[in-house]
Amino acid sequence: MITETKSVQFPSIALDCGVTLAPVDVAYETYGELNAAKSNAILILHAFSLDAHAAGLDKETGNPGWWDNMIGPGKGFDTDKYFVISSNVLSGCRGTSGPSSINPQTGCPYGMSFPPVTIPDMGRLQKMLIDHLGIKRLLSVSGGSMGAMQALQWAVAYPDAVASSIPIAGTSRHSPQQIAFNEVGRQAIMADPDWNEGNYYGRRPPARGLSVARMVGHITYMSDASMREKFGRRLHDQNQFEVESYLRYRGSQFVERFDANSYLYITQAMDYFDLSSDFHSLSAAFENVKARFLVISFTSDWLYPSYQSLEVVRALRGRNCDVAYCELPSSYGHDAFLVNVAEQAELVRGFLASTFREKT
Amino acid sequence: MITETKSVQFPSIALDCGVTLAPVDVAYETYGELNAAKSNAILILHAFSLDAHAAGLDKETGNPGWWDNMIGPGKGFDTDKYFVISSNVLSGCRGTSGPSSINPQTGCPYGMSFPPVTIPDMGRLQKMLIDHLGIKRLLSVSGGSMGAMQALQWAVAYPDAVASSIPIAGTSRHSPQQIAFNEVGRQAIMADPDWNEGNYYGRRPPARGLSVARMVGHITYMSDASMREKFGRRLHDQNQFEVESYLRYRGSQFVERFDANSYLYITQAMDYFDLSSDFHSLSAAFENVKARFLVISFTSDWLYPSYQSLEVVRALRGRNCDVAYCELPSSYGHDAFLVNVAEQAELVRGFLASTFREKT
Repeated sequence: MITETKSVQFPSIALDCGVTLAPVDVAYETYGELNAAKSNAILILHAFSLDAHAAGLDKETGNPGWWDNMIGPGKGFDTDKYFVISSNVLSGCRGTSGPSSINPQTGCPYGMSFPPVTIPDMGRLQKMLIDHLGIKRLLSVSGGSMGAMQALQWAVAYPDAVASSIPIAGTSRHSPQQIAFNEVGRQAIMADPDWNEGNYYGRRPPARGLSVARMVGHITYMSDASMREKFGRRLHDQNQFEVESYLRYRGSQFVERFDANSYLYITQAMDYFDLSSDFHSLSAAFENVKARFLVISFTSDWLYPSYQSLEVVRALRGRNCDVAYCELPSSYGHDAFLVNVAEQAELVRGFLASTFREKT
Repeated sequence: MITETKSVQFPSIALDCGVTLAPVDVAYETYGELNAAKSNAILILHAFSLDAHAAGLDKETGNPGWWDNMIGPGKGFDTDKYFVISSNVLSGCRGTSGPSSINPQTGCPYGMSFPPVTIPDMGRLQKMLIDHLGIKRLLSVSGGSMGAMQALQWAVAYPDAVASSIPIAGTSRHSPQQIAFNEVGRQAIMADPDWNEGNYYGRRPPARGLSVARMVGHITYMSDASMREKFGRRLHDQNQFEVESYLRYRGSQFVERFDANSYLYITQAMDYFDLSSDFHSLSAAFENVKARFLVISFTSDWLYPSYQSLEVVRALRGRNCDVAYCELPSSYGHDAFLVNVAEQAELVRGFLASTFREKT
């Protein structure tokens, strides 16, 4: 399956902060075919540093999509049956408008003058894309990590446009520990003199700071057990452990594909997200929800521990919502939703089939 | 109890790396009185960023020692009964020779030309101090975290000089996750241009990098639960969460009292430490040990999880050593050994009393 990232531009989007961003681009990919009734569309929502290229092999680079093991013919999100849409989030750096985009008023990149963005803003832009594609109601919205936050937000914000939601390894709001790890990343970036208050486009980017930020991230995506299995205390050479060289490599690699300012904006959006903030409880947030839910978490995920998914499940049951919850055994930590997908795919496949039967 | 850090200089010390460091200073404090038989001395071994000032109020600053809740009259390490010694580790920056010390050959600070140091080297210098104080056999050696590593090393390296060992919240060797967190800290420091290959003395120190390193450390010292309790999602002001301002404050504060090069040297010593490395197993390392052991860990400590203490306990039992193990309930994470000391003090008090009865 060869895929290509497309793009659409909308005249403007009104953001939670009160600013109207104009124009706004959104990068997206689609897989499979939309049926005549337009009832088989699924929106995939990516995690923090990922992009619209969720499946297939990219036409130019040949790189597989980040959830290629989950999306495709016969896979969990079966593109023989469903029309799958994946878009890059607002404030990203992979085709959708963000801090590295050109501000038409100045002809220069926005940098830190890009307006602050929220998870609901990301959903708003995705909704514009769905409307643009002529889809009134999605069969499902699904994603892991930050994608799970968006999947929950979608069900709450657009109850008539979502038949089901599959939040995986996520939360309705960040704990102080999650905020703290993000804050370390932000501070590492801003401590790099090359960051220069966000004005580094066309110059040397804050590569050292961004690399350190990514190293912290990678530790939190793995588990103690998976790191012991993968690296042990093996030496890469006389002067470093394998785990050190791995993290340094992943850090430096990240700099090639990700914009430091987007790092700041997106992590901020995650940290400030609180699904219950406009309501008197998390349950109350689900008052008008019409979707059914499949909530998944992983035993060894200490970044988004199962208790956070269970909070969501309890709140959903508090409004008598249709919700299934599975905690899957895995030693891969938070990365499990990306790499340890056999049972996850099976759960998704069954859940989508029954949703399609019952809700369309 | 008013205390004062003293210092002693030795002509030289031969290090594991083959280099002889000359001269070498060691900063230390003592509390209580050495008895006539010199049989009541206890050596306290500090964790990564701490120093010789373990107890009492510092004569100059008035600051309490880092384990003042454990050491003093009637406390866990009862200075009415025992003579307690605490010294700053080799390669530290609080009075003992380290990278910020003057190299007599050049008249300038060593910086990164300071020889690499190991946990056994730290023990070697402590042994010189104990000899200097005229003590042949310690009633006990004890410390938390890196102090626990030293407490284990002491029992193995100087079997005739140690009647008992109390390693708390420690390990016989770092896991890749522990190495990884340290490596992030090191990379953050070295990414700071002010680090300047370690040559920053008399100039601006790498404060931004060191501060980021400390922020990472602080997260790992707390637990998810203790952070939720302490900070929740409360805002410090409109633009930051309390947990963010706390970490930034602790990071910037750390810069005032700690040397970035010592950060590199000491974390490296911790990461390369492996008590079993000269033996064919961890049990074999304990072959000639004569001490009895009290091993303590804490339920919510995810940086030095209980399984690491249990590995030590199993290995000790594998050589039929006298070992008691207690996992104490606490929500404070790794910090528990410093802050949640009531039950820990009780265990230590009983263990020391019986050791004094049976072993002296």
